[in-house]
Amino acid sequence: MTNPQGHWLERGNEIERTVFFSDAVFAIAITLLALEIRLPDVADDPTALQEALIGLWPKFFSFLISFWFVGNYWVAHHRVFHYIRAYDRRLLLINLLFLMWIVLLPFSSSLLGEYGNQQIVAIIYALHVAVTGLSLSWVWWYASRDPRLMDTAQVDTREFRYNELRSLAVPLIFLFSIGVSFYSVSAAEYSWLLVFLIRAVLVRILGR
Amino acid sequence: MTNPQGHWLERGNEIERTVFFSDAVFAIAITLLALEIRLPDVADDPTALQEALIGLWPKFFSFLISFWFVGNYWVAHHRVFHYIRAYDRRLLLINLLFLMWIVLLPFSSSLLGEYGNQQIVAIIYALHVAVTGLSLSWVWWYASRDPRLMDTAQVDTREFRYNELRSLAVPLIFLFSIGVSFYSVSAAEYSWLLVFLIRAVLVRILGR
Amino acid sequence: MTNPQGHWLERGNEIERTVFFSDAVFAIAITLLALEIRLPDVADDPTALQEALIGLWPKFFSFLISFWFVGNYWVAHHRVFHYIRAYDRRLLLINLLFLMWIVLLPFSSSLLGEYGNQQIVAIIYALHVAVTGLSLSWVWWYASRDPRLMDTAQVDTREFRYNELRSLAVPLIFLFSIGVSFYSVSAAEYSWLLVFLIRAVLVRILGR
Amino acid sequence: MTNPQGHWLERGNEIERTVFFSDAVFAIAITLLALEIRLPDVADDPTALQEALIGLWPKFFSFLISFWFVGNYWVAHHRVFHYIRAYDRRLLLINLLFLMWIVLLPFSSSLLGEYGNQQIVAIIYALHVAVTGLSLSWVWWYASRDPRLMDTAQVDTREFRYNELRSLAVPLIFLFSIGVSFYSVSAAEYSWLLVFLIRAVLVRILGR
Repeated sequence: MTNPQGHWLERGNEIERTVFFSDAVFAIAITLLALEIRLPDVADDPTALQEALIGLWPKFFSFLISFWFVGNYWVAHHRVFHYIRAYDRRLLLINLLFLMWIVLLPFSSSLLGEYGNQQIVAIIYALHVAVTGLSLSWVWWYASRDPRLMDTAQVDTREFRYNELRSLAVPLIFLFSIGVSFYSVSAAEYSWLLVFLIRAVLVRILGR
Repeated sequence: MTNPQGHWLERGNEIERTVFFSDAVFAIAITLLALEIRLPDVADDPTALQEALIGLWPKFFSFLISFWFVGNYWVAHHRVFHYIRAYDRRLLLINLLFLMWIVLLPFSSSLLGEYGNQQIVAIIYALHVAVTGLSLSWVWWYASRDPRLMDTAQVDTREFRYNELRSLAVPLIFLFSIGVSFYSVSAAEYSWLLVFLIRAVLVRILGR
Repeated sequence: MTNPQGHWLERGNEIERTVFFSDAVFAIAITLLALEIRLPDVADDPTALQEALIGLWPKFFSFLISFWFVGNYWVAHHRVFHYIRAYDRRLLLINLLFLMWIVLLPFSSSLLGEYGNQQIVAIIYALHVAVTGLSLSWVWWYASRDPRLMDTAQVDTREFRYNELRSLAVPLIFLFSIGVSFYSVSAAEYSWLLVFLIRAVLVRILGR
Repeated sequence: MTNPQGHWLERGNEIERTVFFSDAVFAIAITLLALEIRLPDVADDPTALQEALIGLWPKFFSFLISFWFVGNYWVAHHRVFHYIRAYDRRLLLINLLFLMWIVLLPFSSSLLGEYGNQQIVAIIYALHVAVTGLSLSWVWWYASRDPRLMDTAQVDTREFRYNELRSLAVPLIFLFSIGVSFYSVSAAEYSWLLVFLIRAVLVRILGR
């Protein structure tokens, strides 16, 4: 997995610019999520307006879910890059791959907001979030195996194991929800909320 | 309110990345506000164009109001994070909650621009701004109670009281405007402008 | 113009966050300008497509003009904040006012792209750019009169006079173009290009 | 090419703000690319939805291509500015020119997604990417010839030659693809993927 050629190329310690660029992409993607929530043109009377607002609920729900997924990935990215102290070209590319999924999330989120009752949409969304998580795991995995990129001696052992376990747990829940979707699409979508419990469970397992 | 478990997790002194991410979200949300002001397709003759431009006034008014609310929250966020010197996971999440309301503001602002004469829209907008303010108060409140996060000894006493009072005054005005909206929607909306007087009043009360 | 009250409030030397926020707003506004250039749905045959692409020229022209105006203001903002070393609340607010005009520029730019042959649009655009320039002049003027905000002893005398003269020259050209628009709208719009000559003229006047 | 007049104007060592602004523009442009992928309104039944999703493939392909082109230019911009230690006005303007092409890329990308089978679209896209690359080459070329802007003694000789060769290779491939488009539009578009092999070829030529 290491790169025998091109060692003179595109290495450096100024990881800030990558972190900065990633943060800007996160910020834009998370803001664009809200653009999906738009009122259709309705007559300017109270009843029509109220009905239209209530009709926005699925889009709002999908915004909420996606906002907190992206927010959680931002916190996780934060945690990963906290320990990275140098980059090489491959790390930049894996991080770009991760950002590509973040950038595409408003699309899957709008699918969920509009056709959330369709199984294919639940599957697309679950795969999307799973593959985003796996890309971030790849960033962690790639950097933590190269002492030039990450000084793992500095990482708290529990934090290390926490990051490894968590990076498997999120995709597992989403892949599991694909199985559930063959029985009930709603059940699959509600099962995603389990993600917000992972941290509590892992903290309990790993001890304080 | 403190977090007995998981102290080894997600703490740090590099508050800059959070500040940076928040600034980017502010910048995007404030810019997207202007996207609401769009001319409908009109015939290419002077009279039709002039009428269409005049017809944009409610959207422009709603942009102005929302721009300065977001701008004010940016200045307030600036002031709060000026004193924060470390973060934990909970602080990140409360800040994300605050940013969620900022991200949603272009939606409420577009409602106001299009259906501003409807009471329900005035109520939604007032609740939205109030809850945004309360979330920022929560950031301040949470951080200022934990000496690891904020060294309150460093904060000017008047500034401290100013922040505490202001963080209650903004939501109070907006909740009060909801009451007003049952008599007159316009009066409720104009009462929001009182927010721009809070600072002068508080500075007078607290002394120089 | 100084602020006798509230000196304990919202002052500081960390001007970076303001610069950063301004840069993000610039970056978003400049990118949104390009969103105006959109192909209408046409039949998928070469002739229709070519005609539609040629029909985009006015929008492309308006994008070009606006991109370089915003770019020039970014460079000018850069120059002004290069010398600012502290902020107070009023400086933050004047800077926000300046950013409000930047944020609104995609709107005036889209007007220009669609109804550029109408006098009222030429007037709106000219006023918009003039008032943007005057707001930036206000930032410079306010900061350069307060030694706590800007150490004018550090500013090169020629640069100082250059900034003062340029900040008047840009609005003058645009206000002059409004007069021209009563004779010819096209001539008024082409006269805007004079802005790109200001620097050369001023450098000649002020000497190397 | 150097600028005999105006040496007192707009020079400085704080290159960070330019890098930062460029990164923000990159981040927004790369995120807006994904906005092109939108589902048309379809009936809420599985077959219609599946067909609509499959019909999005050309837009998705064009997103993928454009995302990785912008990503590659970001990495290249990163590499160029790694060595730049000061700026003058001309460098800022050349960099703005480069950013103008980045900002316009979502437009050409949407053309490609919708009318990718048309020769004129393949030519526009190829010219666009070529001219973007040439603008970045100009940044490198301009800065590397002025020792005040770039300390070329610090640059690894192989990296120097790599940057010079690569900055010619990318436009060459795209100009070559224009020739190919007269025989087959698809072949021209697939030939763009050669760009992703340039690095491997150059690393082999220049040695480790």
